[in-house]
Amino acid sequence: MSGKWGIGIPDTEFIRGKVPMTKQEIRILTIAKAGIRPGDMVLDVGAGTGSLSCEAAMQAAGGGGMVYAIERNPEGIGLIAANAEKFGLDNIQIIHAEAPAGMEGLPKLDVVLIGGSGKRLEPILDRAGELLKTGGRIVLNCITVQTLMQCLNYMRASELYKYETVQVQVNRWEQVGSYDMAKAANPIFIVACEKIK
Amino acid sequence: MSGKWGIGIPDTEFIRGKVPMTKQEIRILTIAKAGIRPGDMVLDVGAGTGSLSCEAAMQAAGGGGMVYAIERNPEGIGLIAANAEKFGLDNIQIIHAEAPAGMEGLPKLDVVLIGGSGKRLEPILDRAGELLKTGGRIVLNCITVQTLMQCLNYMRASELYKYETVQVQVNRWEQVGSYDMAKAANPIFIVACEKIK
Amino acid sequence: MSGKWGIGIPDTEFIRGKVPMTKQEIRILTIAKAGIRPGDMVLDVGAGTGSLSCEAAMQAAGGGGMVYAIERNPEGIGLIAANAEKFGLDNIQIIHAEAPAGMEGLPKLDVVLIGGSGKRLEPILDRAGELLKTGGRIVLNCITVQTLMQCLNYMRASELYKYETVQVQVNRWEQVGSYDMAKAANPIFIVACEKIK
Amino acid sequence: MSGKWGIGIPDTEFIRGKVPMTKQEIRILTIAKAGIRPGDMVLDVGAGTGSLSCEAAMQAAGGGGMVYAIERNPEGIGLIAANAEKFGLDNIQIIHAEAPAGMEGLPKLDVVLIGGSGKRLEPILDRAGELLKTGGRIVLNCITVQTLMQCLNYMRASELYKYETVQVQVNRWEQVGSYDMAKAANPIFIVACEKIK
Repeated sequence: MSGKWGIGIPDTEFIRGKVPMTKQEIRILTIAKAGIRPGDMVLDVGAGTGSLSCEAAMQAAGGGGMVYAIERNPEGIGLIAANAEKFGLDNIQIIHAEAPAGMEGLPKLDVVLIGGSGKRLEPILDRAGELLKTGGRIVLNCITVQTLMQCLNYMRASELYKYETVQVQVNRWEQVGSYDMAKAANPIFIVACEKIK
Repeated sequence: MSGKWGIGIPDTEFIRGKVPMTKQEIRILTIAKAGIRPGDMVLDVGAGTGSLSCEAAMQAAGGGGMVYAIERNPEGIGLIAANAEKFGLDNIQIIHAEAPAGMEGLPKLDVVLIGGSGKRLEPILDRAGELLKTGGRIVLNCITVQTLMQCLNYMRASELYKYETVQVQVNRWEQVGSYDMAKAANPIFIVACEKIK
Repeated sequence: MSGKWGIGIPDTEFIRGKVPMTKQEIRILTIAKAGIRPGDMVLDVGAGTGSLSCEAAMQAAGGGGMVYAIERNPEGIGLIAANAEKFGLDNIQIIHAEAPAGMEGLPKLDVVLIGGSGKRLEPILDRAGELLKTGGRIVLNCITVQTLMQCLNYMRASELYKYETVQVQVNRWEQVGSYDMAKAANPIFIVACEKIK
Repeated sequence: MSGKWGIGIPDTEFIRGKVPMTKQEIRILTIAKAGIRPGDMVLDVGAGTGSLSCEAAMQAAGGGGMVYAIERNPEGIGLIAANAEKFGLDNIQIIHAEAPAGMEGLPKLDVVLIGGSGKRLEPILDRAGELLKTGGRIVLNCITVQTLMQCLNYMRASELYKYETVQVQVNRWEQVGSYDMAKAANPIFIVACEKIK
């Protein structure tokens, strides 16, 4: 790992503009379930601010580990670059494209993270499956019923994967004067898939 | 019941300004756990916009049932009156005071609702206990650890009550284009106490 | 309303055997969102133990209000009858069938509750739509992603309805010695649909 | 890190008997918030099955990093030893004592994990504070209102710490035939404290 953080950089450390960002606890669980190790080849689809890409790059660092971050939004491209620089990460390659475009020419992958799929989940999963090594993992974060259902349908129809699904809700209890008061965050579905063939 | 609503008036029906309001699902559960019946005498402490008072008044209507709504905030006083008028409720008496002030001179009560206690929870519960009939209910909504703990400590120390506690979290799934997307609301602790002596 | 309960009979009051039962808080929210009023004609599909049927029957009582409870499981049929008798409810008609069978010959309906659909959700919703009055409500409880998705797809494709979806999670905080300790219950999706045409 | 796991060993991999065990997602978040790095000195109070100790030991491995696991229950002691052996971890020292007993003679610590405090939270925190380096972290898992409140009261009264609190609820969506069905787990409060002086 590089830098002072292990896993779970505080939200406030990222440069983010107004681009939505995966919250710390969801990032931690996503990265942990992806099981990224030094030397791993990782693809982050719909990288947004690059918060997941940065966490992944820290885990993959060493032994030639690399994170490919695909993002269609130009503002996001700038933020990924800025965050990679801020955290001193030289193993993130930024690809400005709308996936599955941008997934050509990638090496064999250990891990695919899918935070955003822009209504093209199936072709992205098809292409990811071709790139993924046996034993590799796909971890998806879903915030809508439709994306979750597409993902579950895909995994159920495929014989390549086994998967597990959790829905995680994190309530932050903020210190307000002499009180600790609940502040909810939206629940996220995390689907962790392992390529078994 | 008066008007077209049973229990659970939609949030958007209330006149509210910027005063925080108990959300529909929490109102429904609070009123249901209070077990308000026609003819009941009800006290609503920290009435805010009067949303709970209005729901309670609909359930208590008939047979002389009455809701006493105590609120310290002048803006709240105006909102309670406006909402009572909007829903055609003539069985709400508004008391502009900071509880336990304003609790003198009330009749014996069937139900006490406590949505806000302004750091005076113990004296409010003391006075509520004097007013409450045997078999009557106190239902509290708590949004901080401290208020919850005070309430539990009080109920555990008292031999007058048995209580049950639930924490309720309601995620609304909003229709955004072709997606249904989660939108969290803050979790609320509901403590329902029955006076058994 | 008949009997001593308003809305939200405690779980322990029902005769239930080993048949799964809708928990109190979910029953309360389901019945409240259904907006059942005295005189209403209500259909409960997949009635199970009859817990929702009993609550609905209490709200519909008076003015000829009636609840039709369809259940395919013979054990359930016995439990519905036993619970109706226990709560002194004479406005529940039990139909031993697997919906949409059993939905012929019903009168026009104000409310349809769907707790269980046994993989036949679409034909049940088709038939419910024919029976439902304009302004009537369908309220579904879903515990799987698949049933939720089917329901949302149906409502989105239809021009007859508007709908809202909430996911509700209730943690009970049990009194264990000197501690109050969380005990989770499974989250439920409640989809409340109004027939607008 | 040693072995094949990064962070987040599957629950089924641990030898556990009937001793309660911190679930995978909570372990992941606890370890991540503790920010354990190679070479760190870690204390695990109320180690139970040793699941947190094992995860901590993997993160602390290298550079002399060590985990001290205190547990009062003899069955737990055996399980910690069995799990350490299973995962090939030689940097866990097991201490059979009821904390704060067993905390004498420990070196300066980078991290203290508190999963169980057996009603002695204050003296445990007092002693932990003496052992903890400036910049070190205490991470507590609380499942009762009372333990949470004690912890928050302690941290609020102390000038040594800043803290953050999250409540995490993880619903597992199990594959049951053609359905994915919610299975709730109890919510946990995680309080992460940093010693700032």
